[in-house]
Amino acid sequence: MQTPWEHRYAQRTQRMGSSAIRELLKLTELPDLISFAGGLPAPDVFPTEQIREACNRVLTNYGAQALQYGATEGYMPLRELIVRNSARYGINVTPENILITSGSQQALDLLGKILINPGDRILVESPTYLGALQAWSAYGAEYVTVPMDEYGMMTDALEAALRSGPKFIYVLPNFQNPTGVTLSLERRAKLIELADRYGVPIVEDDPYGQLRYEGEHLPPVVVLDSESRNEVGCYHGNVIYLSTFSKILSPGIRLAWVVAPPEVIRKLVQAKQGADLHTATFNQIVAYEVSHGGFLDQHIKLIRQVYGERRDVMLGAMDAYFPPGVEWTHPQGGLFLWGILPETMSSADVLRVAIEQKVAFVPGSPFYPTGGGHNTMRINFSFASPEKIREGIARLGKVLYEMIGEPLTL
Amino acid sequence: MQTPWEHRYAQRTQRMGSSAIRELLKLTELPDLISFAGGLPAPDVFPTEQIREACNRVLTNYGAQALQYGATEGYMPLRELIVRNSARYGINVTPENILITSGSQQALDLLGKILINPGDRILVESPTYLGALQAWSAYGAEYVTVPMDEYGMMTDALEAALRSGPKFIYVLPNFQNPTGVTLSLERRAKLIELADRYGVPIVEDDPYGQLRYEGEHLPPVVVLDSESRNEVGCYHGNVIYLSTFSKILSPGIRLAWVVAPPEVIRKLVQAKQGADLHTATFNQIVAYEVSHGGFLDQHIKLIRQVYGERRDVMLGAMDAYFPPGVEWTHPQGGLFLWGILPETMSSADVLRVAIEQKVAFVPGSPFYPTGGGHNTMRINFSFASPEKIREGIARLGKVLYEMIGEPLTL
Repeated sequence: MQTPWEHRYAQRTQRMGSSAIRELLKLTELPDLISFAGGLPAPDVFPTEQIREACNRVLTNYGAQALQYGATEGYMPLRELIVRNSARYGINVTPENILITSGSQQALDLLGKILINPGDRILVESPTYLGALQAWSAYGAEYVTVPMDEYGMMTDALEAALRSGPKFIYVLPNFQNPTGVTLSLERRAKLIELADRYGVPIVEDDPYGQLRYEGEHLPPVVVLDSESRNEVGCYHGNVIYLSTFSKILSPGIRLAWVVAPPEVIRKLVQAKQGADLHTATFNQIVAYEVSHGGFLDQHIKLIRQVYGERRDVMLGAMDAYFPPGVEWTHPQGGLFLWGILPETMSSADVLRVAIEQKVAFVPGSPFYPTGGGHNTMRINFSFASPEKIREGIARLGKVLYEMIGEPLTL
Repeated sequence: MQTPWEHRYAQRTQRMGSSAIRELLKLTELPDLISFAGGLPAPDVFPTEQIREACNRVLTNYGAQALQYGATEGYMPLRELIVRNSARYGINVTPENILITSGSQQALDLLGKILINPGDRILVESPTYLGALQAWSAYGAEYVTVPMDEYGMMTDALEAALRSGPKFIYVLPNFQNPTGVTLSLERRAKLIELADRYGVPIVEDDPYGQLRYEGEHLPPVVVLDSESRNEVGCYHGNVIYLSTFSKILSPGIRLAWVVAPPEVIRKLVQAKQGADLHTATFNQIVAYEVSHGGFLDQHIKLIRQVYGERRDVMLGAMDAYFPPGVEWTHPQGGLFLWGILPETMSSADVLRVAIEQKVAFVPGSPFYPTGGGHNTMRINFSFASPEKIREGIARLGKVLYEMIGEPLTL
């Protein structure tokens, strides 16, 4: 059907990325396919019963408030809870520094809305989080990339990239999506030093910071930045910090937050008013009810145990089933690891064959904003059960052996 | 504190409206102030118990799905329910025509994102809904206005406005926010005829369509448009139709929907992926659970009864307490009526005095995108109890008598 809308789309609509993530999420719904494609938390660790009890309490005691319109900034007790939790990680802020968003994706979109003019350069890791590219490309962002290795963004290449005058630096220091790699302490310090020297502020995206399965917790960039500027480590404002309830509570309630200077929060609030008025009041009060009595600490321990085991199972299965010539990262936390095929192979080709064998992952190239990564793959280890992980990696190993040219049967 | 973000805002940030609505919503939180300012539904009619029971059922039976990521388009059974309900009002569509959004504000934002280039003209009623102006001004929209009278948009002035080449027409035909006025059947037909002649499509915003307290239901513009184009009234696609659960269930769960041609839905889905990935799965499944058994019909009857009474109480109190020279609309439904003061008076001045007397409303001028309305006021009748309405209108009448120069004590 011809409609009068077809020739009326805004120019930015052409810049909106293809729906790679969405199309791939659809694959996860096929019945007997084992999917390592999504970034899905394990439903096994959803605190369903605690949320059910919280819903009952909230609707019994605060129904009129929970079902009503609310403030754009967010539910104050939840903002205060985030302030208290942040302080434990060295982020010393007040509720004026906190905005509740409808998932971190909205935080990325609102930052794009208030900061990005068409043609502005954003400095990103390569590869980087696809959702950020989707959000910002709609505002006409262009990208300057810094390559990564096993210690994260290669800060030796950062200075050259900073000379191009980026509006801000976007970094995922902990168990990065997509690679699972963690930015080393030395490089965090170097990043802060160079960002300061070139006067370029930082957006730090930290959805998985608390999901570490081995090694020592590293201070977030926002904390190191503040400590470098004042003795007491008061929040300085050079780093905007994003985190979320999606990986520690539930993604289906769409709750995340931004830590930023009050003036930036005010601009974000204006943008959010136009974007969705406010995040669901009910969800915020329920999340507060579930979280405020110390439950989160205990629950995060459970998640670490479950995901840590799945990571180990996956790494073990890869050792057992993957052919020589394939490499992968060894993430210390988070949800993903990163596979690297021989240069001559295309992970998109592998995916096509893999789907026939009922196993899926995400080809890496969409995560590279300026091209590259044809032979890389993002593999999720949080969603599938250990048994499914073993079976899925065995299937994928068989596909890889066959495509590399050394069938298992030899 | 100086931060490096201050000189980095995008140009569009300067176009983002002041936070008039938000600042005014804050007033409603002062303890003994009677506020007619917000557009708040009455908490008295929230189906709190039904929602509580639905949360229990959903988390007991579908917890793993309800707390997980979901499809950007929305929860399929909810989209199907909207299809069935729409058919009862003559809107004949399939789930491919439906996108679930995080409140209608998000639908407005996403439409702006996919359709509006900086400098594009949007044809709007004057006055019109402030939230649409906030959403679209951020994308650089300019406005062509058509004045209103008691029968809605004055279609005699529409043709001249259409000659300016607007991208689309935005209309709120039922109990408009802010005026409470309903577009007459004759003018709906004229609007469709002229829109067709000039090849300009329509966005119809209908948050209150089911909340009619007197008179006969009028077919939505989308239905009249489809009927004018084919005998069976199949959805034609020239009109994008917006509605919401905010006024018939709860605004605090942030759920609304768009009816549009599938190609427009696909563009909106791309934009929504970047904006917030998807609307909270939990909220969608709960809304479906509450709504699917016919509960909504029965509940809307209750809302009509409660709001109809409040409207009558307010109209009666205005007759009793407002001075000569002040006029107001007589809405057949919805949440608002519109006050018109003598030309020499400023409603902003009146508000300042009124707040001292512990009563509030919204001055009308922000609803006029191209200026005007200094002597108008939006008055909500859905939120306050009948007793508070009488008391608040008496307070406001006293203020008006004093400012008009005929104190009550004379």
